[in-house]
Amino acid sequence: MKIKELSKQVLTKLKMTDCLGDGAGDMTPMDLYEKLTSQGDTVRTLKTEKAAKADIDAAVQLLLKLKVDYKQVTGQDYKTGCPPSECVVSQDNGPAADGEDMVDPWNVSTTNAKGVDYDKLIVRFGSSKIDQELVDRIERVSGQKAHRFLRRGIFFSHRDMHQVLDAYEKNKSFYLYTGRGPSSDALHMGHLIPFIFTKWLQDTFDIPLVIQLTDDEKYLWKDLSLEDCHRYTMENAKDIIACGFDINKTFIFSDLDYMGASPDFYRNVVKVQKHVTFNQVKGIFGFGDSDCIGKIAFPAIQAAPSFSSSFPQIFKGRKDVQCLIPCAIDQDPYFRMTRDVAPRIGYPKPALLHSTFFPALQGAQTKMSASDANSSIFLTDTPKQIKNKVNKHAFSGGKDTVEEHRKYGGNPDVDVSFMYLTFFLEDDEQLEKIRQDYASGALLTGELKKRLIETLQPLITSHQERRKQVTEETVKQFMTPRPLNYSF
Amino acid sequence: MKIKELSKQVLTKLKMTDCLGDGAGDMTPMDLYEKLTSQGDTVRTLKTEKAAKADIDAAVQLLLKLKVDYKQVTGQDYKTGCPPSECVVSQDNGPAADGEDMVDPWNVSTTNAKGVDYDKLIVRFGSSKIDQELVDRIERVSGQKAHRFLRRGIFFSHRDMHQVLDAYEKNKSFYLYTGRGPSSDALHMGHLIPFIFTKWLQDTFDIPLVIQLTDDEKYLWKDLSLEDCHRYTMENAKDIIACGFDINKTFIFSDLDYMGASPDFYRNVVKVQKHVTFNQVKGIFGFGDSDCIGKIAFPAIQAAPSFSSSFPQIFKGRKDVQCLIPCAIDQDPYFRMTRDVAPRIGYPKPALLHSTFFPALQGAQTKMSASDANSSIFLTDTPKQIKNKVNKHAFSGGKDTVEEHRKYGGNPDVDVSFMYLTFFLEDDEQLEKIRQDYASGALLTGELKKRLIETLQPLITSHQERRKQVTEETVKQFMTPRPLNYSF
Repeated sequence: MKIKELSKQVLTKLKMTDCLGDGAGDMTPMDLYEKLTSQGDTVRTLKTEKAAKADIDAAVQLLLKLKVDYKQVTGQDYKTGCPPSECVVSQDNGPAADGEDMVDPWNVSTTNAKGVDYDKLIVRFGSSKIDQELVDRIERVSGQKAHRFLRRGIFFSHRDMHQVLDAYEKNKSFYLYTGRGPSSDALHMGHLIPFIFTKWLQDTFDIPLVIQLTDDEKYLWKDLSLEDCHRYTMENAKDIIACGFDINKTFIFSDLDYMGASPDFYRNVVKVQKHVTFNQVKGIFGFGDSDCIGKIAFPAIQAAPSFSSSFPQIFKGRKDVQCLIPCAIDQDPYFRMTRDVAPRIGYPKPALLHSTFFPALQGAQTKMSASDANSSIFLTDTPKQIKNKVNKHAFSGGKDTVEEHRKYGGNPDVDVSFMYLTFFLEDDEQLEKIRQDYASGALLTGELKKRLIETLQPLITSHQERRKQVTEETVKQFMTPRPLNYSF
Repeated sequence: MKIKELSKQVLTKLKMTDCLGDGAGDMTPMDLYEKLTSQGDTVRTLKTEKAAKADIDAAVQLLLKLKVDYKQVTGQDYKTGCPPSECVVSQDNGPAADGEDMVDPWNVSTTNAKGVDYDKLIVRFGSSKIDQELVDRIERVSGQKAHRFLRRGIFFSHRDMHQVLDAYEKNKSFYLYTGRGPSSDALHMGHLIPFIFTKWLQDTFDIPLVIQLTDDEKYLWKDLSLEDCHRYTMENAKDIIACGFDINKTFIFSDLDYMGASPDFYRNVVKVQKHVTFNQVKGIFGFGDSDCIGKIAFPAIQAAPSFSSSFPQIFKGRKDVQCLIPCAIDQDPYFRMTRDVAPRIGYPKPALLHSTFFPALQGAQTKMSASDANSSIFLTDTPKQIKNKVNKHAFSGGKDTVEEHRKYGGNPDVDVSFMYLTFFLEDDEQLEKIRQDYASGALLTGELKKRLIETLQPLITSHQERRKQVTEETVKQFMTPRPLNYSF
């Protein structure tokens, strides 16, 4: 870092309001910290006193807003009992310089009950919208009806998908790469989104798939032992396998195992590591000087599976097989970096398909958390738990009384039950009818929730049944580096 | 980095002389840069004009001094045609805060013709001197006469060697770890020092040895392809094997291969990477924001072989076997870091034995360079080349005329031929006689050089013969992860 920049930052700190959006005004980090702490107390008090829902909601909204401001001002997440250090403002592009939504691999937040503004995100990230033309083209090329996630804009953004299809039309195939950071035993429904869609892509295009389980990442980021992270990997693999992937075309791997089993994978990791500077990962991921060197180097490990030469057993040494990565949009920073490096190390850039986030039961302001049992429907929930969670916790866009609801109608755009139905109800006409009925007031909140419960219960039950069928032997087979049943 | 620290650095920059040694005075980085550039020109002119040796030497001395000042002021190495950016002064301990010698894994320089001041280095690095008591103890415990490198202070510093001997006396064994960064095909005699000594330790204590060839490091630091680095590894392995290591007790490995062959090695790398921050490697190694993330993470890879659990095939899963690392003192920063991390990840700290540097033919002011054929005796040199190089390039501590030499005597302390004899002439009495005769003037420079030539020629020739015996099959055997013939 250069002196000029440093001085500028010192000045910036002194008149920090310059670079802030609305809301934070002239507040110092300490002012904001104190306001946040007191707002947190307010919310707790309201909840304890079982205050009116509207009051609690308003207080929570303000709390979330303050948290976003705090992150913008300090570059740090707000932590209770942890006053701000005198940090510098974030140096680079990304959330702090833009509107209100925060999206990176570790934090997603928005103050909008409809969720993140994805159109803005496309502009900010420089990706392309999946428009009707692309959806139509995918149907044409594959000869299959587009998956509901495509029809409904749940996969909403892409990079180079037209190029993948151009090549595919000329009989040049590609492979799929997706993954997960295994930080707990319990997967929730949101975790399944990329896997459900990836399975559809695999079936539709009949191509190989590699699935990375970043147990090393979780070890580096969380207060977990290597053994725990590896155990989560093996458990999560069962849920992933239960999604129905083709064992003859799918390789699932733990970083902790595969790094030590493939010199070619490590060679690609080192190649990426040579071509990315600390300045770059600082700009892309917000890493700081007090981050451990493992975090700083990790992005190369998530990048490496984008290159077919990382899997010589599958691609027989070919370096030029195109990779397509279906993932949630928060993972894009890794692959922006990867795409930047790829041509410099002689590899094709991976293409991407980005999904929106699956909302928490409490509303679309945040991503779901595996550590909060009530924030989501888990894959281990019983039918009764599903029913209770939806009825108790799913944020409603309905009116307070039946009379009002009948008169004014509900708001499906902020209603979490309706959002969940857009993810899981296959029938477009039924979904549209539900939307209209809810908006008109013909469908009550309780009835909408009932529809969701009836949709989720069999889905989860049959997932649980499939998972039971997954033996240790099957896991081992999926996770053994081996040739796949495909010739490039 | 906190604002307070930043402000402090800005202030430091404004009155930068505060933290400098003598010499740099009130000069700004740009002043120094210009002075260095002009001094470089002066040296080149003097050399071109074949000026008097004393004049050239004086000019070179000033140039070296300026380079050291420049690094202190800017934290960067001087590069021709590359004016200083407005960088901050180096934040941490290490060379900039101390005297004139620079010692880190990539730069060794001193302005003293006798070489680096090793006593000062012991104080700066916080290691312990190998005193007569320790040498005597090693002889007592091992029942062997101490190696000449120990008798003559070539291995001069240690960490925890007494602890290793304490345990050894109680039948608790240890293992040896040393290595090399393979950046070229051609090894010079200086490269052999740690290997010659390590072989003696292996023979003397009858213990296993692991040798790391950091081809990944060389790829990250140099403008070389992965393939080149790996090829150098295989070639260098032959020279190392030619030193005579016991094939039943020695495992040689390429990082590029072993990382991809051992999940346990990678697990230890990640453990170290989790426990070292960028701030720490910045302080220890001087890494900056524009360094690639591979360099930043690499120290963990050099650390990992210090832990016996990185080699389950050798140590059968035992995590507590003590490691002893013989290496040149410039590698100590890696192991200071390793020793800091070890207890935090539940492993014993490695012990160390540090060697001085083998001087360049041109004098002890710099380490030898594999890229300058005349800076050293290479293991591929013919007897004639050895003779020519010594006669032509070995810096002499003798007087200008025979008459003066007979009258005043030579100075063995700065005479490179004499220094080389201290490394390679086994007989203590002969060496002492040569020293006395040279100092008294009885022995002339030409005669001294002749002694050196006669010592080196058979050494190199027999090395070349042994190297010829090393087949690809032998290399493969040494480099296959396998159990060694030893039970812990």
